[in-house]
Amino acid sequence: MPKTLAYLGPEGTFTHQAAQIFTTHYTTDSAYKLLPCPDIPEVMEAVAQGTVEQGIVPAENSIAGTVNITADLLAHELNLFIQGEIVLDITHHLLSFTPDLAQIHTVISHPQALAQCRHFLKNHLPHATILKKESTAEAVRLLKEEKQTGTAAIGSLASHLHYQVPIKYWHIGDFPHNQTRFLLLEKNPLPHPNPQKTSLIVFPQANRPGQLYEILGVFAKYKLNLCKVESRPDKKELGSYLFLIDYESTLPSSKLQPVFLELKKVTISYKNLGSYPVYRYKDKSNH
Amino acid sequence: MPKTLAYLGPEGTFTHQAAQIFTTHYTTDSAYKLLPCPDIPEVMEAVAQGTVEQGIVPAENSIAGTVNITADLLAHELNLFIQGEIVLDITHHLLSFTPDLAQIHTVISHPQALAQCRHFLKNHLPHATILKKESTAEAVRLLKEEKQTGTAAIGSLASHLHYQVPIKYWHIGDFPHNQTRFLLLEKNPLPHPNPQKTSLIVFPQANRPGQLYEILGVFAKYKLNLCKVESRPDKKELGSYLFLIDYESTLPSSKLQPVFLELKKVTISYKNLGSYPVYRYKDKSNH
Repeated sequence: MPKTLAYLGPEGTFTHQAAQIFTTHYTTDSAYKLLPCPDIPEVMEAVAQGTVEQGIVPAENSIAGTVNITADLLAHELNLFIQGEIVLDITHHLLSFTPDLAQIHTVISHPQALAQCRHFLKNHLPHATILKKESTAEAVRLLKEEKQTGTAAIGSLASHLHYQVPIKYWHIGDFPHNQTRFLLLEKNPLPHPNPQKTSLIVFPQANRPGQLYEILGVFAKYKLNLCKVESRPDKKELGSYLFLIDYESTLPSSKLQPVFLELKKVTISYKNLGSYPVYRYKDKSNH
Repeated sequence: MPKTLAYLGPEGTFTHQAAQIFTTHYTTDSAYKLLPCPDIPEVMEAVAQGTVEQGIVPAENSIAGTVNITADLLAHELNLFIQGEIVLDITHHLLSFTPDLAQIHTVISHPQALAQCRHFLKNHLPHATILKKESTAEAVRLLKEEKQTGTAAIGSLASHLHYQVPIKYWHIGDFPHNQTRFLLLEKNPLPHPNPQKTSLIVFPQANRPGQLYEILGVFAKYKLNLCKVESRPDKKELGSYLFLIDYESTLPSSKLQPVFLELKKVTISYKNLGSYPVYRYKDKSNH
C-alpha cells in the first residue's frame, strides 16, 4: 500500500511543490500518493484522524510571517508531530494569455502573493482591478479554464508548468529573499535519527512581568540557539499569550531532559512537537 | 476646521465603532469628520501624508493575534506615532432577511469573523456555502443592497444598526472573550499627559543565540511589565526577525532615558512609537 501525503491544494500550489520535492528527494518510501485538500485545517485533520499517513502545510513565510491557522491548530486543537521541515524559495511570476500588458485590466491571485507584488502592480498595472482567490494555483487554474483575456494571474513556476499558462513577466515579487517553511506532519511521534531543530509550544504561567525572560533563560543556560520565539494569543483574553519556540539542536529530545525539567518549573506546561531534519531545496531550474 | 479621522471602513465595521467611541467619549475636540477608507494601508498612508489629522486601524485581536499589515507598515514603511489605544469587545451575530435558518444556503462575512464562528456554522449551517468578503460591514451592506434571500451575513451590532438587517442569532462567536485593540495614529509625536503604555519596534543585532534574552533583560532590570513581545519577519531572510514590544508604564518616555540607553547597547536600533493612554470601552447596551 502506498502512503498518502495530503497537502494544501489544488495542484500547482507551493505546498504541492514542497510535497513533490519531499517525496522525490527526501524519503526512501518510494510509492506515494499525493492528495490535494482545499484548506489547511482539512490537511491537518486528515492526519490527526488517521485517514492519511502524512500531511504538508505552510508554517511561515519570510515576508508575511507565521501562518496563524497552522500554529493555532498545532497549539490548541490537534495532537500532531513534526517529522521534517522543507524550505522553498518563493518566486512570483505574472501569467497571462494576453500578449500586451496594456490590455490587462484584472489581476487575480492569493492575497499574500498580491501583497508581495505590490510595487510591481503599482508601477506596471496601476489601473488593474485586483481580485483575491483562494490560492495562486486556483487563480492560474481559473485563468486556464475560462481562457480569460484581459486578465493575468500571479503564480508560481509550478502552476505555469501544471496549467500551461504563459509567463509574461518573471520574478515580479518585491522582496528578493522570499522563502516559505513547510511542515511535514504525522500523527505519532517517530524519533528521527538526525534531527536539526525542535519545535515547542510553551504555555506560560499567569501573565506577569518577566515570564518570557525566565523561559528564555532556560535555553540561554543550555546554550541552545533559538531560531524562533513568537507569541500567539492563548484565545482566553487580550494580552495573554502562549509562545512558539524553535531551537537548533542535533541532539534528540531524549538527551535534553534537563532542559525540559527546568522548563517545566517556570511554565504551566509545554508541548513538544518533535525534533526533525530541515530540508533546504535549491532548484537550479528556478531561474 | 473640524479634524478628520480616517478609519478602516465601510461604515458599520468594528473600526468605525472604535472611531465613534473615541470621538464621542475620549477627546475634547468636538467637531470630527470621520472618513472611511477601503483598507488599512490607505488609512495609514493618509495620516503619513498629512491629508488627514488622525487614523484608526485594528492592531491585535485576542483570538487571531496581531494584524500583520498594521505592524509591518509601522515597522518598515511609515513614520507614525500612537496617540491612544481603544479596546472593544467583538461580538458576532447572524444577520438575515430570511426568517427560517433551514432556508439559509449561503453565509457571507470577513474571513476572520467566519473563522471565529466555525463551531456555530458547523453545528447550525453545515451545508451552507461560505463566501468571503472584505469586511463584516461590506457583507451586511451587500445583503441589504441585494435583499438576498437564502443568504445570511455575520456582522456586528453596529452593522445591524447601520444597515437595518435583522439579527437572527445573537452571539454566535466560538470564543467568549473576543476583543480587538485599535490604534489611534498621528503623524507627529505629541507627548500625552497620562500615558499607560509604550510601544517599541526593536531591531536586533545579527541573528545570534541569546539576543532576545538580552533585550528582555533590559526591561526586567527596570521592572517594566511587558504586555506584548512578538517577533515579526524583518523581510530580509527566513528566520531573521524584529520585535514588537509593548510595556506598561505611566511614566512619559522622557523619564525612561536609562532604559533606552541600555536598549541601544544591545540592539541595532529601536523605534519608539509613543507612550499613550488605553481606553477600554464597556458598552452596556451590547447584550
